[in-house]
Amino acid sequence: MSTSFTMIGGEGPESYRQHSKYQGGLLEAATEKINEAISTKLNIDLASNLVNIADFGCSTGPNTFRAVQTIIDAVEHKYQQENNLEEIEFQVFFNDSSNNDFNTLFKTLPPARKYFATGVPASFFGRVLPRSSLHVGVSSYSLHFLSKIPKKIKDCDSHAWNKDIHCTGFSKEVVRAYLDQYKIDMESFLTARAQELVSGGLLFLLGSCLPNGVQMSETLNGMMIDCIGSSLNDIAKQGLIDQEKLDTFKLPIYVAYAGEIKQIIEDNVYYTIERFDIISQENEEIPLDPEFLTVSFKVTVGGIVASHFGQHVMEKTFEVVKTKTQEMLPQLANAKPGMQYLIVLKRI
Amino acid sequence: MSTSFTMIGGEGPESYRQHSKYQGGLLEAATEKINEAISTKLNIDLASNLVNIADFGCSTGPNTFRAVQTIIDAVEHKYQQENNLEEIEFQVFFNDSSNNDFNTLFKTLPPARKYFATGVPASFFGRVLPRSSLHVGVSSYSLHFLSKIPKKIKDCDSHAWNKDIHCTGFSKEVVRAYLDQYKIDMESFLTARAQELVSGGLLFLLGSCLPNGVQMSETLNGMMIDCIGSSLNDIAKQGLIDQEKLDTFKLPIYVAYAGEIKQIIEDNVYYTIERFDIISQENEEIPLDPEFLTVSFKVTVGGIVASHFGQHVMEKTFEVVKTKTQEMLPQLANAKPGMQYLIVLKRI
Repeated sequence: MSTSFTMIGGEGPESYRQHSKYQGGLLEAATEKINEAISTKLNIDLASNLVNIADFGCSTGPNTFRAVQTIIDAVEHKYQQENNLEEIEFQVFFNDSSNNDFNTLFKTLPPARKYFATGVPASFFGRVLPRSSLHVGVSSYSLHFLSKIPKKIKDCDSHAWNKDIHCTGFSKEVVRAYLDQYKIDMESFLTARAQELVSGGLLFLLGSCLPNGVQMSETLNGMMIDCIGSSLNDIAKQGLIDQEKLDTFKLPIYVAYAGEIKQIIEDNVYYTIERFDIISQENEEIPLDPEFLTVSFKVTVGGIVASHFGQHVMEKTFEVVKTKTQEMLPQLANAKPGMQYLIVLKRI
Repeated sequence: MSTSFTMIGGEGPESYRQHSKYQGGLLEAATEKINEAISTKLNIDLASNLVNIADFGCSTGPNTFRAVQTIIDAVEHKYQQENNLEEIEFQVFFNDSSNNDFNTLFKTLPPARKYFATGVPASFFGRVLPRSSLHVGVSSYSLHFLSKIPKKIKDCDSHAWNKDIHCTGFSKEVVRAYLDQYKIDMESFLTARAQELVSGGLLFLLGSCLPNGVQMSETLNGMMIDCIGSSLNDIAKQGLIDQEKLDTFKLPIYVAYAGEIKQIIEDNVYYTIERFDIISQENEEIPLDPEFLTVSFKVTVGGIVASHFGQHVMEKTFEVVKTKTQEMLPQLANAKPGMQYLIVLKRI
């Protein structure tokens, strides 16, 4: 059984909705490339007058609304010469796990939207839509979440047991176990989407990856995750959590190297790679403010901490994270930049 | 602007989920008729290997899951001779207003379901699905909710102002205003569904209606609604709510006579009526227990009361309702039975 991980719901100050601007930045930068790909690469039959679009890992918005609107605008622009453009209808499938806060997503849908909005509560590592029903898919910052934590990483008796929750303790075996799971998940994702996409349809993948030679623990994200691990250690020393419970807590996250991602996609027979862009991510875009950084990681990783240790421990942990982040500011300022990818795949 | 009305969400003892068995009874009785209608009347092209099913006004389940499963089983049975039955996929659209508790609906989806589940957050008085995309639709106990309360019923200066919140105060003008709104809403519903349904597709409508010559106030439902009105009056006398706020509170509910429903459907040019069954509703099916009755109405009407007066007044009101229901038991035992309808429409 796979566990599913979701962002903190609702619309409050500590919700994912309020802390997703950072990802919105890449989307903005990607808009022109999405337009171009749809204009030159999308090759679908509009006889049914229906265009189906899906966002896999939509969370609670608002980035998902911008992403699908960008795609709709581009499709309309491409087909504006066709006589029956006004006949074309758009249906948008917002997909995320059934634990996602769909109520918030639905209540904040753009009121002036010109598409039929639907929510699809299911794991995107399997099929979530009918065969050959999808014209354009997108997935933003979702694929670094694994479907589950590799068993041996959690097993204290295994060579691949990861002592720390994430980065600094990485042995070769741990990295291997994470990468193996990542490959399985990416293959499942790509194969499920291949069944759902019509021939000539497009799949856009956006996310973070590591530059060659850079360790996760050297990046800002890695440092923050290590900080969460070390905060949990402090909490354990205070007696708030069992050492045993702590030993089996690992994060279902793997940020891959660009080359690893490319290899997995090339091994999949269902797509042609139309675009594989790696953009350096400037750390200056991220405010080095302890409050901001703490809440950013709380809304994305806090849910995973809470589901293992409970809400109270999670809150306590992020109080410690905030204090530690303040002390870590000089290190964080010197973090190596990560990278972002925009990949355009076309269904053969 | 229309308001939308939803059932009390969640899974607690005072949730709609826990109090919807009563409606499930009609569904069970209707199963055979649904099977027969699908077997003899459904006439769709299965070339795409996809059957789309929708429930309009799904609430939080579980009745909606039973309804769609009944339809899927019947469609599979009908086409079991066809060679490609194993190729056929089902997509189910669970529709309700965006205020509905979709999170609960999604978390309680049957784990062994063999369909792609999607939620559609939008008012069913307008279009919610693409043109000609739907094969079988169903709507159970949803169409007595109006899209809005007729303005003149709320206006103290109007002849059609309804002094009481619902039944006993019915003047001819009030009934007329309610019926006019009901007609508008039913026509909107039927016309929107006509655009969504493929030719040869079926629409099942289930719900409550009044027998000829019976007043709403003579039925158990009517008596309970009057009881809620009289409880609100008591609360106003205690000074918990303004008389003015009370005067403008009306329920967006109209239970039509069977003849009225039939007339509206016959006036709509998009359908043939394949079945129009009126079944007498035995009051004995409903336990005459003050606790049960109070909670039943709290989960369906409580949300409307709370959105006008706030949660606190709603809770207080239903405390009074419970006491009054106890006193009313002899009257309730003599209530005239209502009726239930099962209507099968085929898209021309």
